[in-house]
Amino acid sequence: MFITIEGPDGGGKTTQMNLLVPALEKLGFDVVRTREPGGTPIGDQIRSVIMDMKNKSMHPRAEILLFCASRAQLVEELIRPSLAAGKIVLCDRYADSTMAYQGYGHGLDRDLLKTLLNFATGGLKPDLTILLDISAEAGLRRRITNHDEWNRMDDYALQFHERVRNGYLKMAAEEPERFVIINADRPKEEIHEEIVSILRGKI
Amino acid sequence: MFITIEGPDGGGKTTQMNLLVPALEKLGFDVVRTREPGGTPIGDQIRSVIMDMKNKSMHPRAEILLFCASRAQLVEELIRPSLAAGKIVLCDRYADSTMAYQGYGHGLDRDLLKTLLNFATGGLKPDLTILLDISAEAGLRRRITNHDEWNRMDDYALQFHERVRNGYLKMAAEEPERFVIINADRPKEEIHEEIVSILRGKI
Repeated sequence: MFITIEGPDGGGKTTQMNLLVPALEKLGFDVVRTREPGGTPIGDQIRSVIMDMKNKSMHPRAEILLFCASRAQLVEELIRPSLAAGKIVLCDRYADSTMAYQGYGHGLDRDLLKTLLNFATGGLKPDLTILLDISAEAGLRRRITNHDEWNRMDDYALQFHERVRNGYLKMAAEEPERFVIINADRPKEEIHEEIVSILRGKI
Repeated sequence: MFITIEGPDGGGKTTQMNLLVPALEKLGFDVVRTREPGGTPIGDQIRSVIMDMKNKSMHPRAEILLFCASRAQLVEELIRPSLAAGKIVLCDRYADSTMAYQGYGHGLDRDLLKTLLNFATGGLKPDLTILLDISAEAGLRRRITNHDEWNRMDDYALQFHERVRNGYLKMAAEEPERFVIINADRPKEEIHEEIVSILRGKI
């Protein structure tokens, strides 16, 4: 089973991954945890190009192609082999992130993005996507409060992050059988319990 | 005017660029010289990921997306602004390289590649493409004799490089008004003179 965790920055994706992996392992599942961009040695090299604060002049088309490159490598090197071995793959961000950030956020042609994403993933879609939904304001506030590492993506304007959030909600409405929307502006334990109870029903 | 130099490795592209830039400057042109992958600070970071011998496990789809990312950045940061300023842009490799190496070499879907390349370049095509044609064997022999820096791309099998060469020849046959084919298995001075005389006629 291939599960992705998605949502705007500051929604607590990493925190929830940290809680979810041991919880699933306690239930007896073999879990592979990964993240995007990155997740492989080649992907991590690409990740540092994307995140580097020096690279502010990066063009949106270059950015999306880098995300796709990292993803293509992740799918072939890690995700497909792990799924074939019967493991649960938990991925922090995947193709929906590109659609949300580059499509809805930067306004790139969404049909063209679908073609690109299909190329990058070789057509591999998640079985379940957990959307940690939070307003752009609350999300950024939380990243500041938590002293999270600040990266180049955080520097975009607040309206950009608002468009990203709305994009996620639209995608979830279009594929209700794949998406689960979770209100992420709550204590982390509450969110974790909701996720576990949903997963118990689905796996 | 946007001019690209293409062809299999070992055809002497760098040597010809070294001779061509001063020759064009002597004729009074303002020349911007660049190369692919790379050509911008972001592109150079991507170039080192592509060329690194440690990254042998790179999947072909990841590879092409990295080339496209570097190219998108190069087009927007350097090529378009230089052309707008009335300069001649001379580029060592461009979109035809992806079609030759990934399409004809690795056998990826060429229609899909066209869509990808169009996305990466924003539709920018060269006005003239100089194809330095050399057989795969002669090209690799030359790289060894010259003690050129050996990179990950050179490690592919000889048949791969033969497919690349044939791909170039097919593309040149399809767009005869854009391509000039030059026999690159000759002394560099002879090749240089032929290129200059062709450019005198075109510019």
